[in-house]
Amino acid sequence: MNNYKITVQYDGTRYKGWQVLSSTDMTIQGKLQKILGKMTGSEISVIGSGRTDAGVHAKSQVANFHMDTQLSAEEIKYTLNKYLPNDIAVTDIAEVDDRFHARYNAISKTYSYHIYTAEKPDVFIQRFLYHYPQHLDIDAMKNATLQMVGTHDFTSFCGNSHFKKSAIRTIQSIDFETDDNNIIISYTGDGFLQNMVRIMTGTLIEVGNGTRPSNSISELIERKDRALAGYTVPPQGLFLEKVYYDL
Amino acid sequence: MNNYKITVQYDGTRYKGWQVLSSTDMTIQGKLQKILGKMTGSEISVIGSGRTDAGVHAKSQVANFHMDTQLSAEEIKYTLNKYLPNDIAVTDIAEVDDRFHARYNAISKTYSYHIYTAEKPDVFIQRFLYHYPQHLDIDAMKNATLQMVGTHDFTSFCGNSHFKKSAIRTIQSIDFETDDNNIIISYTGDGFLQNMVRIMTGTLIEVGNGTRPSNSISELIERKDRALAGYTVPPQGLFLEKVYYDL
Repeated sequence: MNNYKITVQYDGTRYKGWQVLSSTDMTIQGKLQKILGKMTGSEISVIGSGRTDAGVHAKSQVANFHMDTQLSAEEIKYTLNKYLPNDIAVTDIAEVDDRFHARYNAISKTYSYHIYTAEKPDVFIQRFLYHYPQHLDIDAMKNATLQMVGTHDFTSFCGNSHFKKSAIRTIQSIDFETDDNNIIISYTGDGFLQNMVRIMTGTLIEVGNGTRPSNSISELIERKDRALAGYTVPPQGLFLEKVYYDL
Repeated sequence: MNNYKITVQYDGTRYKGWQVLSSTDMTIQGKLQKILGKMTGSEISVIGSGRTDAGVHAKSQVANFHMDTQLSAEEIKYTLNKYLPNDIAVTDIAEVDDRFHARYNAISKTYSYHIYTAEKPDVFIQRFLYHYPQHLDIDAMKNATLQMVGTHDFTSFCGNSHFKKSAIRTIQSIDFETDDNNIIISYTGDGFLQNMVRIMTGTLIEVGNGTRPSNSISELIERKDRALAGYTVPPQGLFLEKVYYDL
């Protein structure tokens, strides 16, 4: 059995997220597994670096799968792209060491969240951003992120109230890219809890619009209470940008 | 009754085109008329500058409708945008002279066709372009357009074989905008036959890939035979860019 590492790009609008839920639900993992199953006649399990939620996009999701085949890696990629719908594409493939595991070996990830602040919506990009037509104070938001970066217990930013494991994560950086109508916030960290990027972004928006003090984040983290953090911004502004591996 | 002129932007992917076909089909005109009907309790007819086909987009379609209302123009626009789906937006509204008619008073239109020549598809823009991953000779294509510009009988570029009226139209300009991966061809003319822009573009692509001589277009026009022209490129690359009025 060979082990293949693939990079997958998707427009998540139509999907219930990465992970297979049932055989009838539209999921990215499900689409990939179905084609690989038809190619080989056996069930192939595609391991993603992590789940992405319903409606969330990926520029470079990474996954791996084990498969016994005469096809070259390029031929597998070609066949996948031939049968995948237009909103999913395999952009790279490589045969890798048998021990490579897309989830266990991921050491960090970058997510970006796209906010569109122009007054008018734009129908051609609305699938890929959150339209928030109000002024946001970027300096206040940047000040708030300084309190998020580092190693903390992020329970206050965890969308799963039944989560029992450690909520300690390390955020390495939070960067802003802005122009007249766009704010892109990029989060890089060793791991993210459920909805964590979307709750952090909702909290930053509340800082930016003046309803939450920019120096209140450290206390919010200490309180470990989801109810005290901001709202969960919608999924369509979120992209999994990159997954980092040390091998 | 007031007469309102609106500018409408839409992502045509999900629609069977501008024009209402039946009450169950997804059309842009149908979506607008349904909301206006609910606002007024009576049937409102929305007159577009012209039809756009299934899957075709518009940056600035123009339409008008007559309506008796206490609402201001801005309030009508607000209400339309509130109830329209995310892939349709009214970007402008104005109360206009009672005689204004979006179709009869249109003097010319600009359509653009977007070709993406990069090797890899890009899932985030695939809804809005035609992926054609081959080299195209832009100079040859430009040379061919010189024979299209002007006043001609465009029967060879008419997708409706039952079309009985005059096929004489004037193309004022055909312009190219190119970079490493994109070719945008903009056509401005006083009117366009069914599928005309898409057949002209398919013909230009055949010139660009070397299968059709760049000096063969004048003869093709003279022959008045659709079968001799190029293929009809897919709708998702086509945008109605602008409609021009002299009043």
